[in-house]
Amino acid sequence: MEINKKVSEALNSVREKTPLVHHITNYVTVNDCANITLAIGGSPVMADDINEVRDMVSLASAFVINIGTLNSRTVEAMVEGGKKANELNIPVVLDPVGAGATAYRTEVAKRILDEVKLSVVRGNLSEIKTLYGIETQTKGVDSGETIDENADKFTIAKEVAKNFAKKLNTVVAITGAVDIITDGDTLYTAHNGHKIMAKITGTGCMCTSLIGSYLGAADSALIAALAGITSMSIAGEVAYENLDKNNEGTGTLKSRIIDGIYNLNENVIVERGRINEE
Amino acid sequence: MEINKKVSEALNSVREKTPLVHHITNYVTVNDCANITLAIGGSPVMADDINEVRDMVSLASAFVINIGTLNSRTVEAMVEGGKKANELNIPVVLDPVGAGATAYRTEVAKRILDEVKLSVVRGNLSEIKTLYGIETQTKGVDSGETIDENADKFTIAKEVAKNFAKKLNTVVAITGAVDIITDGDTLYTAHNGHKIMAKITGTGCMCTSLIGSYLGAADSALIAALAGITSMSIAGEVAYENLDKNNEGTGTLKSRIIDGIYNLNENVIVERGRINEE
Amino acid sequence: MEINKKVSEALNSVREKTPLVHHITNYVTVNDCANITLAIGGSPVMADDINEVRDMVSLASAFVINIGTLNSRTVEAMVEGGKKANELNIPVVLDPVGAGATAYRTEVAKRILDEVKLSVVRGNLSEIKTLYGIETQTKGVDSGETIDENADKFTIAKEVAKNFAKKLNTVVAITGAVDIITDGDTLYTAHNGHKIMAKITGTGCMCTSLIGSYLGAADSALIAALAGITSMSIAGEVAYENLDKNNEGTGTLKSRIIDGIYNLNENVIVERGRINEE
Repeated sequence: MEINKKVSEALNSVREKTPLVHHITNYVTVNDCANITLAIGGSPVMADDINEVRDMVSLASAFVINIGTLNSRTVEAMVEGGKKANELNIPVVLDPVGAGATAYRTEVAKRILDEVKLSVVRGNLSEIKTLYGIETQTKGVDSGETIDENADKFTIAKEVAKNFAKKLNTVVAITGAVDIITDGDTLYTAHNGHKIMAKITGTGCMCTSLIGSYLGAADSALIAALAGITSMSIAGEVAYENLDKNNEGTGTLKSRIIDGIYNLNENVIVERGRINEE
Repeated sequence: MEINKKVSEALNSVREKTPLVHHITNYVTVNDCANITLAIGGSPVMADDINEVRDMVSLASAFVINIGTLNSRTVEAMVEGGKKANELNIPVVLDPVGAGATAYRTEVAKRILDEVKLSVVRGNLSEIKTLYGIETQTKGVDSGETIDENADKFTIAKEVAKNFAKKLNTVVAITGAVDIITDGDTLYTAHNGHKIMAKITGTGCMCTSLIGSYLGAADSALIAALAGITSMSIAGEVAYENLDKNNEGTGTLKSRIIDGIYNLNENVIVERGRINEE
Repeated sequence: MEINKKVSEALNSVREKTPLVHHITNYVTVNDCANITLAIGGSPVMADDINEVRDMVSLASAFVINIGTLNSRTVEAMVEGGKKANELNIPVVLDPVGAGATAYRTEVAKRILDEVKLSVVRGNLSEIKTLYGIETQTKGVDSGETIDENADKFTIAKEVAKNFAKKLNTVVAITGAVDIITDGDTLYTAHNGHKIMAKITGTGCMCTSLIGSYLGAADSALIAALAGITSMSIAGEVAYENLDKNNEGTGTLKSRIIDGIYNLNENVIVERGRINEE
């Protein structure tokens, strides 16, 4: 359980350093992203005006770009903020929400890939395939495709992730029933989580904010991505287990996931983490 | 209880079909709208840039327009999205939040009525009267008027709804202590809910998102509107009943309403539904 | 406990009058601001388009300006709305979120101070010092400095607040571990609250919305500011006490704070309020 230990250390590092994590993100899940960043131990800030994005990024330890409700005004701020972060060696994570669903969304995501050096890209299978240039179906902002551990698709997804990571020189994370995290050389699969999490909006966005928090405190982008994903999935599991199935549902579950991140500690990670290096 | 059975069937249909429900909505309640759409069984997407609204609407099974925090940029996207939906026979529901409160808001709501063919309009009494052209008082985004079952106002409200529905060839729903739902011929009154629901922001918006979800899966816009309203009201009742009145209040209640939608099923609707055809 | 009694009376006044509280605020915490305004007994409205801000402000009993996610479009609406409120003698409260963090944010906050007559300014120590023109460190949108009851800093903070209040002829409130509220003559310190509240986004914003609600119903801006701050802090205390520390955390706590405001009453304030006049 060497790797669980590393994830725990990354968590401790976030809690010690309280990294400021700047976000340009969507207005659907932004409150949950801010609260989960606080719950893990980071300090969130959201500001999207072009007049201040460079200044705000300069204060930050990591920068999260999430295109969930992009518009022409905020896209410019994303790109400018990303460039400033690159200048200052501040790590950037991209969540290409809904890439593939519309031409505009795909173009914007690709433009960010072109103009900003990313430490991590986290998306679902459809989004990542779209960015890599493989045909896929994206249904709105949810994946039109799922990863099944035993299918050929799983093998293909791992190949896509590795090749994409090598090509971009970044960490690529594909999240789904099983998660794939790779820097092009090392590849981890992560097996925590519960399918009910797909019934809450923003579990992907929150996961990206957690990755941003870890990036702001950790040395390795690969471990940051893995730690963000594993933290989110464990919190989802714990939240589901504690749910009173007769009276409670996804409304309560959302609060409990943030509770789960707040209560996360070394023991929980070491006991529950289900990560394989492949 | 024939009609409760129809509502139940509509619910089953949403859960089978998982309709993609595109929204251009306000940033106050958008997260709750997304989560309640997921809880009922739909798949929400929110995107408001003019560069992608036509593409996103084209993927959807229904389109929700909510003018809660309208601005000149998003209004154009609402109209363009609505036109595209009309072209493709995708049903559109309008929530004219705060129509009557400001001239701009009233104009925009009327412009949407003029340029977009709507399947359902859902509002409170002030909003609907404003759109129909009757003088009223709207206090901010909340109704300045209430419907009381025993008053003349109730009779008048039903007349307004019927006439408006005929004039526009759409389903009109007026929600309040009692709800009125009509396509101009058939008129239902719905009697579920609890007055505490007015103490949470977005119960109207969430109701409209539920109607959008039903529209994306059902054949009848009248049943979709009735089912959305009844689902919301029953969830509110159940949430209130389960509340620990000493320690819990409207913060917890909001999560429990989403829980109630997630746990909604045929039995709950058949037992609790209080719908009259008049 | 004369002063606790006055706060209670202010609460009763909010609940009797249901003041309409117009907000131009950020998209991160807007939903919580709306729900807490409803919970205290006010009626929230959020509208930021320049085409309707004057009309909406005209309907309101108080106007809240919160620059959390300001942009060039909404800043104009803030200023225009503020001027209209001044014309109509509608009280305005400013939350200068993150002033000091970026030059743009500081400029905008100062512009609002210049162009709009404010009844209350509420911020953390860094924000207030920035606006008063003292050098400070603001870390993102959170205070880079804290007030400690026994330090010199506390004495200095009280001086800053008093001088700033006199200079601007407004009530100044600095919130932190201890809160300072002054109109330049009378100065209160308020000692309720729990440090976990800093682990939830928007406790400051919600506090400002509560002050807006009290301003919409009370005669005295000083009492309104004190009442808003004390209400928020007591709700935070109660929420924390009721938390199941093994399974619950900041996700649940946020809902419980709104519950606490909903359940707030005279007895709770009289028993728990810890306010000193200095």
